[in-house]
Amino acid sequence: MRYGPQYGPDITFLGVDRCDWSDAASYSDADAVILGAPFDGGTSYRSGTRFGPQYIRQACYLPHDGSRPSLALRVDGLRDLRVYDAGDVEMFSGDAERSVRGLQAAVHAVTSAGALPLILGGDHTITWPDAAGVAQHAGQGRVSMIHFDAHADTGDIEFGSLIGHGQPMRRLIESGALRGDRFLQIGLRGYWPEPETLDWMARQGMRSYEMTEIGARGLEECLGEASGIAMDECDGVFLSVDVDVCDPGHAPGTGTPEPGGLTARQLLDSVRRIAYELPLLGMDVVEVSPPHDHAEITSFLANRVVLEALSGIARRRRDARDGTTWDRRQPLLDDRPGPG
Amino acid sequence: MRYGPQYGPDITFLGVDRCDWSDAASYSDADAVILGAPFDGGTSYRSGTRFGPQYIRQACYLPHDGSRPSLALRVDGLRDLRVYDAGDVEMFSGDAERSVRGLQAAVHAVTSAGALPLILGGDHTITWPDAAGVAQHAGQGRVSMIHFDAHADTGDIEFGSLIGHGQPMRRLIESGALRGDRFLQIGLRGYWPEPETLDWMARQGMRSYEMTEIGARGLEECLGEASGIAMDECDGVFLSVDVDVCDPGHAPGTGTPEPGGLTARQLLDSVRRIAYELPLLGMDVVEVSPPHDHAEITSFLANRVVLEALSGIARRRRDARDGTTWDRRQPLLDDRPGPG
Amino acid sequence: MRYGPQYGPDITFLGVDRCDWSDAASYSDADAVILGAPFDGGTSYRSGTRFGPQYIRQACYLPHDGSRPSLALRVDGLRDLRVYDAGDVEMFSGDAERSVRGLQAAVHAVTSAGALPLILGGDHTITWPDAAGVAQHAGQGRVSMIHFDAHADTGDIEFGSLIGHGQPMRRLIESGALRGDRFLQIGLRGYWPEPETLDWMARQGMRSYEMTEIGARGLEECLGEASGIAMDECDGVFLSVDVDVCDPGHAPGTGTPEPGGLTARQLLDSVRRIAYELPLLGMDVVEVSPPHDHAEITSFLANRVVLEALSGIARRRRDARDGTTWDRRQPLLDDRPGPG
Amino acid sequence: MRYGPQYGPDITFLGVDRCDWSDAASYSDADAVILGAPFDGGTSYRSGTRFGPQYIRQACYLPHDGSRPSLALRVDGLRDLRVYDAGDVEMFSGDAERSVRGLQAAVHAVTSAGALPLILGGDHTITWPDAAGVAQHAGQGRVSMIHFDAHADTGDIEFGSLIGHGQPMRRLIESGALRGDRFLQIGLRGYWPEPETLDWMARQGMRSYEMTEIGARGLEECLGEASGIAMDECDGVFLSVDVDVCDPGHAPGTGTPEPGGLTARQLLDSVRRIAYELPLLGMDVVEVSPPHDHAEITSFLANRVVLEALSGIARRRRDARDGTTWDRRQPLLDDRPGPG
Amino acid sequence: MRYGPQYGPDITFLGVDRCDWSDAASYSDADAVILGAPFDGGTSYRSGTRFGPQYIRQACYLPHDGSRPSLALRVDGLRDLRVYDAGDVEMFSGDAERSVRGLQAAVHAVTSAGALPLILGGDHTITWPDAAGVAQHAGQGRVSMIHFDAHADTGDIEFGSLIGHGQPMRRLIESGALRGDRFLQIGLRGYWPEPETLDWMARQGMRSYEMTEIGARGLEECLGEASGIAMDECDGVFLSVDVDVCDPGHAPGTGTPEPGGLTARQLLDSVRRIAYELPLLGMDVVEVSPPHDHAEITSFLANRVVLEALSGIARRRRDARDGTTWDRRQPLLDDRPGPG
Amino acid sequence: MRYGPQYGPDITFLGVDRCDWSDAASYSDADAVILGAPFDGGTSYRSGTRFGPQYIRQACYLPHDGSRPSLALRVDGLRDLRVYDAGDVEMFSGDAERSVRGLQAAVHAVTSAGALPLILGGDHTITWPDAAGVAQHAGQGRVSMIHFDAHADTGDIEFGSLIGHGQPMRRLIESGALRGDRFLQIGLRGYWPEPETLDWMARQGMRSYEMTEIGARGLEECLGEASGIAMDECDGVFLSVDVDVCDPGHAPGTGTPEPGGLTARQLLDSVRRIAYELPLLGMDVVEVSPPHDHAEITSFLANRVVLEALSGIARRRRDARDGTTWDRRQPLLDDRPGPG
Repeated sequence: MRYGPQYGPDITFLGVDRCDWSDAASYSDADAVILGAPFDGGTSYRSGTRFGPQYIRQACYLPHDGSRPSLALRVDGLRDLRVYDAGDVEMFSGDAERSVRGLQAAVHAVTSAGALPLILGGDHTITWPDAAGVAQHAGQGRVSMIHFDAHADTGDIEFGSLIGHGQPMRRLIESGALRGDRFLQIGLRGYWPEPETLDWMARQGMRSYEMTEIGARGLEECLGEASGIAMDECDGVFLSVDVDVCDPGHAPGTGTPEPGGLTARQLLDSVRRIAYELPLLGMDVVEVSPPHDHAEITSFLANRVVLEALSGIARRRRDARDGTTWDRRQPLLDDRPGPG
Repeated sequence: MRYGPQYGPDITFLGVDRCDWSDAASYSDADAVILGAPFDGGTSYRSGTRFGPQYIRQACYLPHDGSRPSLALRVDGLRDLRVYDAGDVEMFSGDAERSVRGLQAAVHAVTSAGALPLILGGDHTITWPDAAGVAQHAGQGRVSMIHFDAHADTGDIEFGSLIGHGQPMRRLIESGALRGDRFLQIGLRGYWPEPETLDWMARQGMRSYEMTEIGARGLEECLGEASGIAMDECDGVFLSVDVDVCDPGHAPGTGTPEPGGLTARQLLDSVRRIAYELPLLGMDVVEVSPPHDHAEITSFLANRVVLEALSGIARRRRDARDGTTWDRRQPLLDDRPGPG
Repeated sequence: MRYGPQYGPDITFLGVDRCDWSDAASYSDADAVILGAPFDGGTSYRSGTRFGPQYIRQACYLPHDGSRPSLALRVDGLRDLRVYDAGDVEMFSGDAERSVRGLQAAVHAVTSAGALPLILGGDHTITWPDAAGVAQHAGQGRVSMIHFDAHADTGDIEFGSLIGHGQPMRRLIESGALRGDRFLQIGLRGYWPEPETLDWMARQGMRSYEMTEIGARGLEECLGEASGIAMDECDGVFLSVDVDVCDPGHAPGTGTPEPGGLTARQLLDSVRRIAYELPLLGMDVVEVSPPHDHAEITSFLANRVVLEALSGIARRRRDARDGTTWDRRQPLLDDRPGPG
Repeated sequence: MRYGPQYGPDITFLGVDRCDWSDAASYSDADAVILGAPFDGGTSYRSGTRFGPQYIRQACYLPHDGSRPSLALRVDGLRDLRVYDAGDVEMFSGDAERSVRGLQAAVHAVTSAGALPLILGGDHTITWPDAAGVAQHAGQGRVSMIHFDAHADTGDIEFGSLIGHGQPMRRLIESGALRGDRFLQIGLRGYWPEPETLDWMARQGMRSYEMTEIGARGLEECLGEASGIAMDECDGVFLSVDVDVCDPGHAPGTGTPEPGGLTARQLLDSVRRIAYELPLLGMDVVEVSPPHDHAEITSFLANRVVLEALSGIARRRRDARDGTTWDRRQPLLDDRPGPG
Repeated sequence: MRYGPQYGPDITFLGVDRCDWSDAASYSDADAVILGAPFDGGTSYRSGTRFGPQYIRQACYLPHDGSRPSLALRVDGLRDLRVYDAGDVEMFSGDAERSVRGLQAAVHAVTSAGALPLILGGDHTITWPDAAGVAQHAGQGRVSMIHFDAHADTGDIEFGSLIGHGQPMRRLIESGALRGDRFLQIGLRGYWPEPETLDWMARQGMRSYEMTEIGARGLEECLGEASGIAMDECDGVFLSVDVDVCDPGHAPGTGTPEPGGLTARQLLDSVRRIAYELPLLGMDVVEVSPPHDHAEITSFLANRVVLEALSGIARRRRDARDGTTWDRRQPLLDDRPGPG
Repeated sequence: MRYGPQYGPDITFLGVDRCDWSDAASYSDADAVILGAPFDGGTSYRSGTRFGPQYIRQACYLPHDGSRPSLALRVDGLRDLRVYDAGDVEMFSGDAERSVRGLQAAVHAVTSAGALPLILGGDHTITWPDAAGVAQHAGQGRVSMIHFDAHADTGDIEFGSLIGHGQPMRRLIESGALRGDRFLQIGLRGYWPEPETLDWMARQGMRSYEMTEIGARGLEECLGEASGIAMDECDGVFLSVDVDVCDPGHAPGTGTPEPGGLTARQLLDSVRRIAYELPLLGMDVVEVSPPHDHAEITSFLANRVVLEALSGIARRRRDARDGTTWDRRQPLLDDRPGPG
């Protein structure tokens, strides 16, 4: 039985077909399954991310027709792939532990059914069950993590709890689900965490690209390096995108905004590139907090992050099949029959 | 050790003195102790009430000097009474059960120390520990409840949990902390709860004034009747004010707004009257959600609800001492030395 | 073929069942059919009402489960009646004439199928096709109009056009669809229209209750008088509710706000009373402009206006069947099995 | 030379004609002259009132054509009277003293030229020069004051200065410009001023209607009593309307909002009544702070306050001329040629 | 007869002189004439652009004195050129066809009078009449188009209409007004249009720079290439700037925001460069939707786009006259008399 | 006696210790003392900067614990330095002259006590007393100025006054406090001031980097050049950061936004670099106007500007002590004990 969306009407991501994550038959041909995780009980500051899934699903001015042909990649991520939306997994923000448990079960079910789980948060708490659910099927330590964020999210205990939006990465590594030395973080900055936690991170062999290094070396170079590490002795990548990796000017609708981040353009390009170049096994987009947004620009951005990933995967598959390569310098109309 | 405010700097309600609820000596002369309960994990829709305590504490254009002489009642609720602010009780919105337990301990401690606990929410989940903490000291069934709200908050299980902002009143009655037939609800309206829950309420002997009855009979008459019931075989009253009892036009910053409510004027007058006429044993003000507010008007209203209650208590004491009575028709400057 | 919603995902009003207005078989048992008219091309000032239907459909914090048991009326307007949502009628705001024509066809189809059409606007332009579509079936001059509004909407030509949100009432009377002397307007105020148009209105025998008269005589008395006129030689009533009849404090999200209007409480009570006392043949709710709203309070209000009408109709039918009468003074829990 | 508006383009109130206050010939036939006083240097909390004049001038959805026929009063306040807009008097918010001096000169000039000055604030600081400028011409002590406000504005020294928005009424009385015992205040409430200032007010013989008295006795009765006092041994009235007299739900865009105020409807009715019943000699509308407003509802309200006053004056003159009386119960279309 | 602004008072762009477009004598010495086109009937999603002209005209913190000396270009675009503002061309958003016809007539009149028409939208629908009006005078196919936009706007039929904001470029090419192979688009991105439309575009020989190509090659290089094409066998350029070419972080106040766009700085530099390097024959700035803006930042941006263009033209003329060249590396104060 | 914050509760910048600027003993060990200057009486357009100090003090999602370890610089600016917050200096926005005088006294006191004054504005008026107060101690002409701003702020007389937010730089140079030829301005753009003022600036030998030059040469190069000039024959630098140097997309909450500015990332990097490379003698952060902000992003940015400066100073001292150098390319976790 499909639970459906928790806050609002039963819609799907831009109109793709519905499925029930607990009934694999309802999505047996799926390439990707979208799950909502409307949870904000783990935030350490502003809440509101419980409305993330519904806003991300519909933040678009085009018809909700389950089709989005990418100008840049020349594929339709919603049509060239088979994408379903399983609705929300029931989250009770007042019970993080139960919520996390339920979400992991759903992600694991989707992964086991052979589909890529794409989870719409919710606060970053959910990346623990998201990536753990994938690793549960793909194998402990076989999945690397590429993590866009202003924050390392490697805290230990906060507000007396092991579960929260500042801690998922620690839980994933401690539990053995993911290897610390295949943990790539992009976009960190600011004044957290404190040295003790940085020491812990270093001991795990994590590789964290703070904005200063990114500024000095260039994002492209850092991404290339990270991709190399990610594919070393791992079978695929979990991509976790916290919208606060972007500058608050580009993503105001979030809970713990840290000035000085990426532009929206940089984030979209990076997600596209990773989805195109690396084998994704799972993905989440988190920390969209619509009550703090303006003109839905953060929801629009998160919607496009999802589409860039799906488009990148679709193009990756097409190029693999056809033996072609995507050329970023190719003019938009170049491969179409011209006026002549 | 004082925990201090959870979201923001360590301030107190309009500048009253600090105390530590766990150290009775720090407020031995208190008439009232303010506690913040920055919890929003129990909301069924919009969150954001975790910012309620900090906004209510400071939503005022006057100096934060611990003094507020009431024009209407001719007393200073913050000076004529001895009022402390104990800061926030640590709430983790992701763990309702633990949060609720911690809050009840704090309320009980304050009550046991002989002070009136005045809790700033947070979502309505907190009224369970608030009133239970008072009854724990005052005696099971010895405290009546006057409850301003658009909603009955008598749900049973929601999102798989017994704890949430739609259920506190049921928990209070089921646990025996409060008597169902001394439960007075003012301002209900809309489309919730469903008949089964209404049946349960009826069986408990609850008395719920829906807006239609209030419109037909007048608020004054309903309040008078409710006050009579409240004082029958009870020693005092717990007053719970959910700001959504007001019309969304007067209190937009809340999580589950229901059109057609009281005006701000009606709420202030009602709180003042209850505090003046009845012996209050505890009070909370809940469901202020600053992220959904505009120009802080809901926070300003909640701040004044607190002040009306404190002013009413102060005037009640003065009149009891002096054998006088408050006259609502008396001109503002009437009892002062005139020009002659 | 169902067109579905024009701006956003295909949802229905609070989760009621879908139908296709052009296929009567899809709603053969309907008591009421909801139609969206997302049009804002006729506004003389702020636009944005094109988003009205989608916001009104979902502005509620309760589950979208097609059920709304009214506390006040003790009926469930969405279950005791059979209510469908036909989605939007395609409106092109840049072509008022075509939009109006298409809408009238849809309303006429619904009416002809024996269901009450309930149209969600859109700007007030749509009341011309809405009421004309009803009269087309019920008979020219057989339908009276009760019209809540700050404005008379009886202009002649504006911006060179006969069609717009300031003119629908004139078109309805001129075309003979409705009788001028069975046209009841409630809540007018402000500085429009000019004397020539008022003269025209007087010549049609219209009866317009300006807020000054309402203030002096009382809304209840005015409504009673209007109801009497409405049922004189007419078979039923079309109810048109422009949210700007309310004060901007209660309904800021509208295009031409006029200070000094009704409270939300007054509007809800009035709609409920009319739906309970008079035979409704059609209804629309217009001028909700979400881009100018705050915290969706205007959309919430409009959603409740719809529910009050449906609840009133349901109770009217039940009382007619059972020979009972609704008592506004009855306590909420009074007719339920008590504690004994 | 006309200074013109200080913040924005050179517009006039709803399109009335321009004049230059320093050149009496430019408005020799004026009944009323509008002056902007874009000052916010005297506010004790939120600023932003410097944008008041420009917003009030244009907050209307009707054409800016210098005509506004009142439905309620059946006169056109902008056409039946001769109204000019002199633009802004240059205010420098960083120099209250100079600003106040310049404004008084302008008001005095207008009054001396035989026109009623109608000043758009700006914070309440300006009422000192506004009323003093009128009294300078009409005679010290010959002008009574009717003052709508949540606050008494009778402070002495604030921030080391005698000039500010909490002090104008004290300055007016101390300077002898106005008599303390012809000072009528409507709508006071809240927690300011402190007892010493109330004592001072009492000694001046001021009459202040706090909201509690207004609630208990009714606004109509209080207004009637106040009007009687105002016309005792005075030649006319200065009307000062601070929009914060209204509840923040009806007027959020203001600097020092105090919950529990009048409705917009009550304020409009009161201003209309005073302008109709009493001889106005001057008027100001103050404390509109557009940056804190939503959907311009406070600016719209202030715009209508101006129009109600002008309409009231126009009707007063017409009735005086024709020997007629305005009947509030008369239906809108009643005195027009009917269908027959 | 000057129609004047449609929504609000009769102001001009930053205070330049008024003219009447239908009376060439009123602007016989004009270099440029500003026209407002307050139309939003053609939008496929959010409306609100009808308020664009008035907001763009006044979104500036400097005095409205008809002067704006550019720091960067060392000319005053409003003084060195002779610029008039003809007010708005009457648009009825409910009748796209009539609106479009009227606008073309006005643009043609201005062009025929020898002035550059500079149209403030309004949604992008207006570019059809804008550019067609110019080509009507300059000659079919003699005007190239440089088009900044996130969207190609080459749709065929939408909502059953040939006219709308997604179709102007198709109409211009189909009608022969502009040549498809002199159509340069900068900033496209996202998921529209679908392949069939891209094929049509390719067949016309359009040259569209999607953001990926711009990112890979650099904006400067793309602009240079586009400029070369634009001047090949054409007499001049029409420049159409849709503010949604910028990232929503820089231009939130628009109807169909697409994340990942240009920065404001990039847009300003590009417009300046084009106006400086190429002969402009006409220009429009469209899709500013103030109701969706925050702090007017999108209106401010559009205002500066206009000024950059006018400044660029002025500097182009001066350099042509003086035989000088603008040097972007020159320090601001470099050509002024120094301390020595 | 500590005055404390003027608008709101008595808090300190992120929880650092309190002091009283007039009592040097209360901060005898201070490295830096924060002063609030809540003044907005000098703004030429939007006000609201009076709320700047309180918002900047608390715009952070981390605990207010007086510690902020910088990821980028590996120091804790609030712990490695001894930082106090002296609260606000009383500003009366209605009396710029008195406010300015009082502020200079406070800054001078702090400087004389050997601490770096760090002033939170307030509008830019305050830089006159800020820098003059520093020069009063450090010596006339011995302090250079690095000034980030969209505007030169070198106006002469505005609104009849020598004091305002467009004039501080002129006053500083005219008074001899600072040398004109050691005045470095970064980020200028737009259409102000007019040529006469630019001539004056040139005569003083000022060096102003307009955005065009910055774009053409690169910010890094310009900063390097400016730093060189700044340290020529001066003992240290006063750093004045007007947040409007950033693009409105990154800093909407300001009074006179000018499109086309720096990104937040660029500003943070620049401030960090200056604080690290040059000896700072004083600093202010001005023109944050919270009422015009969204989601507090401008306040967050200003808070981080302060932290970058303090972190830069701390790292500068550490490197000076240890003989080390900060390497921007060093990975975040590089100097910590790794997994091995």
